[in-house]
Amino acid sequence: MLVGVVDEVGPDSRLGLRAGDRVATLVSLSLTPLEITDGLGRWDGRSEQVPAEGHAILFGRSIAAVLPDDLPRELAMAVLDVCGAPALTSRVVAGYEHPTVAVIGGAGKSGSLSLAAARRAGARATVGVVPVAAEADLLREAGLADEVALADARDPVALAAAVEGALGQPADVTVVCVDVPGCEHGAVLATAERGTVVFFSMATSFSAAALGAEGLAADVTMLVGNGYVPGHADFAMQLLRDQSGVRGLFEQRLEVAP
Amino acid sequence: MLVGVVDEVGPDSRLGLRAGDRVATLVSLSLTPLEITDGLGRWDGRSEQVPAEGHAILFGRSIAAVLPDDLPRELAMAVLDVCGAPALTSRVVAGYEHPTVAVIGGAGKSGSLSLAAARRAGARATVGVVPVAAEADLLREAGLADEVALADARDPVALAAAVEGALGQPADVTVVCVDVPGCEHGAVLATAERGTVVFFSMATSFSAAALGAEGLAADVTMLVGNGYVPGHADFAMQLLRDQSGVRGLFEQRLEVAP
Repeated sequence: MLVGVVDEVGPDSRLGLRAGDRVATLVSLSLTPLEITDGLGRWDGRSEQVPAEGHAILFGRSIAAVLPDDLPRELAMAVLDVCGAPALTSRVVAGYEHPTVAVIGGAGKSGSLSLAAARRAGARATVGVVPVAAEADLLREAGLADEVALADARDPVALAAAVEGALGQPADVTVVCVDVPGCEHGAVLATAERGTVVFFSMATSFSAAALGAEGLAADVTMLVGNGYVPGHADFAMQLLRDQSGVRGLFEQRLEVAP
Repeated sequence: MLVGVVDEVGPDSRLGLRAGDRVATLVSLSLTPLEITDGLGRWDGRSEQVPAEGHAILFGRSIAAVLPDDLPRELAMAVLDVCGAPALTSRVVAGYEHPTVAVIGGAGKSGSLSLAAARRAGARATVGVVPVAAEADLLREAGLADEVALADARDPVALAAAVEGALGQPADVTVVCVDVPGCEHGAVLATAERGTVVFFSMATSFSAAALGAEGLAADVTMLVGNGYVPGHADFAMQLLRDQSGVRGLFEQRLEVAP
C-alpha cells in the first residue's frame, strides 16, 4: 500500500476522494502505476516502509481510504493493511444463526480484528488459537475471545482437538489468519459439517484445501479471503476505536516492531 | 481414484458398502493406504489407468461409490472423477434467485456436468465459454448451454467481454473448470457484484484470486471447489443418464482418448 496526498480527482471518479485528502491505497503496489522522482534517496534500506517522492495513478476500480485524524498514522496503516479480514468474517458469521467461531492466529492483526468482528456479528462462542504461551497471555488479557487455546496449526489433529476442546464442538466458522503453510487440513478438520472456512493466509495452498476437504469427506464451504468488502476500512477502524483489546494488541505490536 | 471389490466391511463403517460391491474410491490415492502385490506386472506403462493386484484400506471419513450396473465402467469412472463440480455448482446456483451462470471450460467433463447442474438448479441463463471453435461446435450440438462463447480464459478483459456479451450482464455465478493457470482475474471480472466464483481448477492460484479480487475492488465470493458434497456421485451419474448432451460429450472424449 501507499500513503500520499490526492493531487487531482478525475471527473468520473467514484472513489469519493478530494484534492488534499491524505489517503492510503488498499491494493497491492504491483497493481499501482507509480513514478518515483527522488531515487528513494531518503530511504536507508533498513525499514519496510519506504519514503518516496513521486506520483501514482489510482483507477476507477481501485480502493483508497482517507486516513483518520484521530489515530496515529502507523496505527491506521496497520489496521488498513488487514481490514478485509474483519469485514468478511462479519459477513460470514452473520450468515449463520449464532455460530461458534474459531480464529486461527487470533492474537495477530487480522486475527484480533476478526475475533472482535465475529463477536459483534453474533457469534455464540469464540476461540482464538495461538501457537505459543506468550501470545495466549496477550490474547487473554485483551479479552477478545471467549476461549484461548494453544495449538500448532500445522498439526491437523491437534488443531481440531484444541478447537473442539474450547468450544465443546467443531467451529461453525473457522478463520485462518496465520501466515504459515500447511494449515489447510487442520482448519477443515476443526470445522463442523456445513460450516465455513475462510482462508486469509497468503500461504494457503489451493490444492491442499480442495483435495484435503475431499479426502476427509468434509462438507465445508471454503472461501478465498477476498481483501475487499465494501466499507471494510471504516469497519475495521471502528472496531479498533471501540475495542480497547484490539487497540492494545496493535499498539504492542507496533512497539515491538523494529 | 481406485476401482476394486469390497473384501470386508468394518463393524462401525458408515460408508454404506457391502462385501462384493464393485466400488470406485473418490479420494486421491495419495490418501489411500494401498498394498500392491503383483509388482504392476500387467501394466505396459502406456496407459494412465494401471491394473493392479492388491488391497487398500478406506477410512471412516472416506468416500467410495458403488459402480452402477447400467453404465460402462470407463464412462462411470470419468463421471466420478469430476462429480464434485456439478453438486457444488447446483448448491451455489440454488442459493441465488434464478441467476445467470457462466461455466469457463463448458465443453469439458466437469464443465458440461456443471452446465447441466446449473440449468437444473434454476439458472435463468447459462453460457459455456470454450477456447476453440471445435469445442464451441461440440457444446452447441450438446445443447447444454443457452449461449456458447469463444474466449481465452487467461485474457481477463476478453473473458469478461465474452461472458457479458452472451448473458447481457456479468454472471451471478462463474464456474472455472479449465486446468490452465491464470484464469483468476478474468473469472473475477466476469462476475457481478455479490456474485460467486467457484474455482474447480487445480491450476488456481490462491494468491492470484485473493489479491486480484482485492485489486479490482470486486465484491465477489470466491469458493475453493471442494470435491466433496454429500450425494455428489449419484447426482452426477443421474445428470449423465438424463442429459444425452452430457453423455455425448463424455463418450466422444473417451473415444478420442488414447
